[in-house]
Amino acid sequence: MMTPRIRKEVDEALFAFVDRRRPDLLAVSPDLAPLLDALDSLLAGGKRLRPQFCYWGWRGAGGGTEPGIVTAAASLELLQASALIHDDVMDSSDTRRGQPSVHRRFEELHRRESLLGAAEPFGVGAAILLGDLCLAWSSQMYESSALEAERLARGRTVYDRMRTEVMCGQYLDVLEGARRGGTVETALRVVEYKSAKYTIERPLHLGAALAGAPLPVMEALSAYGRPLGIAFQLRDDVLGVFGDPAETGKPAGDDLREGKRTVLVALTAERASPAQVEVLERHLGDPALDGAGVDRVRTIIEESGGLAACEEMIERYADQAAKALADAPLTSEAVKALEDLAVAATSRQA
Amino acid sequence: MMTPRIRKEVDEALFAFVDRRRPDLLAVSPDLAPLLDALDSLLAGGKRLRPQFCYWGWRGAGGGTEPGIVTAAASLELLQASALIHDDVMDSSDTRRGQPSVHRRFEELHRRESLLGAAEPFGVGAAILLGDLCLAWSSQMYESSALEAERLARGRTVYDRMRTEVMCGQYLDVLEGARRGGTVETALRVVEYKSAKYTIERPLHLGAALAGAPLPVMEALSAYGRPLGIAFQLRDDVLGVFGDPAETGKPAGDDLREGKRTVLVALTAERASPAQVEVLERHLGDPALDGAGVDRVRTIIEESGGLAACEEMIERYADQAAKALADAPLTSEAVKALEDLAVAATSRQA
Repeated sequence: MMTPRIRKEVDEALFAFVDRRRPDLLAVSPDLAPLLDALDSLLAGGKRLRPQFCYWGWRGAGGGTEPGIVTAAASLELLQASALIHDDVMDSSDTRRGQPSVHRRFEELHRRESLLGAAEPFGVGAAILLGDLCLAWSSQMYESSALEAERLARGRTVYDRMRTEVMCGQYLDVLEGARRGGTVETALRVVEYKSAKYTIERPLHLGAALAGAPLPVMEALSAYGRPLGIAFQLRDDVLGVFGDPAETGKPAGDDLREGKRTVLVALTAERASPAQVEVLERHLGDPALDGAGVDRVRTIIEESGGLAACEEMIERYADQAAKALADAPLTSEAVKALEDLAVAATSRQA
Repeated sequence: MMTPRIRKEVDEALFAFVDRRRPDLLAVSPDLAPLLDALDSLLAGGKRLRPQFCYWGWRGAGGGTEPGIVTAAASLELLQASALIHDDVMDSSDTRRGQPSVHRRFEELHRRESLLGAAEPFGVGAAILLGDLCLAWSSQMYESSALEAERLARGRTVYDRMRTEVMCGQYLDVLEGARRGGTVETALRVVEYKSAKYTIERPLHLGAALAGAPLPVMEALSAYGRPLGIAFQLRDDVLGVFGDPAETGKPAGDDLREGKRTVLVALTAERASPAQVEVLERHLGDPALDGAGVDRVRTIIEESGGLAACEEMIERYADQAAKALADAPLTSEAVKALEDLAVAATSRQA
């Protein structure tokens, strides 16, 4: 099994990149140290799924073992760090990967140092800026990978599309959460752009484009990556409601308090009785929802058949991905690695 | 005078880039139209200083008239749009360039469409995402300019440094605003990174690096750009307190309400009586500061000699820039354009 070694190489490339930025920042001012600390803490967690899909997209398309690909792939983790930091601001989340979210860390710094003004906007400001820095650094890291200029130019087209897709998908997600009458269909459209393409299909395409893959390979990666990406997000939705906080790194029920209009919620709403829908609508998005309320919503999701329908969808999409992979014109080593990654991306453990 | 023509070309390149993104976004969802509308509205204003400095850095270093340089230079305007959108969120500003700020626009959309949940976090979320999109698009636009790959690689080093500097400078600015006992020296350090380098020196360096300028040219551009950048920001500080809202596009006294610890404020605090300092500290950062309060602070800034000291600094730095420019190893056409830009950047009119 090759994926753990690649994951380790991704980590090394990522931390090496951040470490090279460190002295420059501290030379500007030692006051910038908390930004680096917050980033170190965030990057300590994470499954590195996107870099691994990128790497195996490359290898699957016949790319070699040069270290440049690991650097280019690892840059996706900085893009993801940016998205998480800004996402947590937008959702007012307290925790991420089992640690305080970045904006909460800086609120705490504001209090600890008895700074002037309100702590909350200070935390938000710092988090917006650190997210911006991570976004800028993701493209800097990509461009700094030692791959040939023509390869990087080919990959850039995918990278550009992916960034636009994920940002637009996030906006559609915010909008969906603020609208009445979301359906399974509208929730799936959000999943497609915000999460499925961004997490799996585009990283695969990025690696393959860097390797110079022909169209049939790109299409085969889509046939595998698109359903797997949906299955990944549906699993994430289920874990967001039923997952163990020790594993998800998020308090139980956070997704419910944030009022996320997930496919799981839409499947439940379709199947629930009017009385159950009333409870669901009342609890979803209630920032003060307590443990008993979370339990009530969980029961509705289970008893309505919403959970079973969601698990069935996950299985169906994961099967579709597996079948597509079996037929894909990829190297056998990559097929094996992508099988393992499919399991990791849809596993019942966070 | 060449600068108006270049400004027009920058505008054309900028709007052409955004227009090429438009159909892709609307194909994802017509719900994305408000993001494009908000960006159009923001980009309708602005003096395009950064692209113009970049362009004349290029021409000054012997670069030709190929259109690629205008595209690369215009990409700085998207970076600036990102910074402004996020800055307005951090400062809770209501207006920008005489229009509602992006987060306020989306608050208004939330109310108009009677969306669920609170309008304010919806506005903030949309603005964070549109700022992210502009940041991603700025590098996409830069890379899409038709300049040779080696030129773009040289320029990228400057671009990367500039982005990191402005984001770190912004954080230091937020921190400075939250600390007691700011001095002229600490305020100037913020100015250097957040504004001076970002607005003038780095755009000049970017153009020159793209043109393949040798070290003496880069140093000459610094000798001109660094003091001019400081003069630019000090002028901005003065306009932030005394400027005509019709010209600045910001309500009178906004900088005071936000509690900005500008060099102007530090110069005033150094010169004011204890009683004046007490009034100054009480009013600075008061979000409810009314017109009478703004007038009281203005009077203190004038009577203490803070304003005169600031005007003197502006003149000194602008003179220093002018002298450096006279000796600079640049083409005479560029020297003339940079003289005009120096006037535009430090003019008493916004």
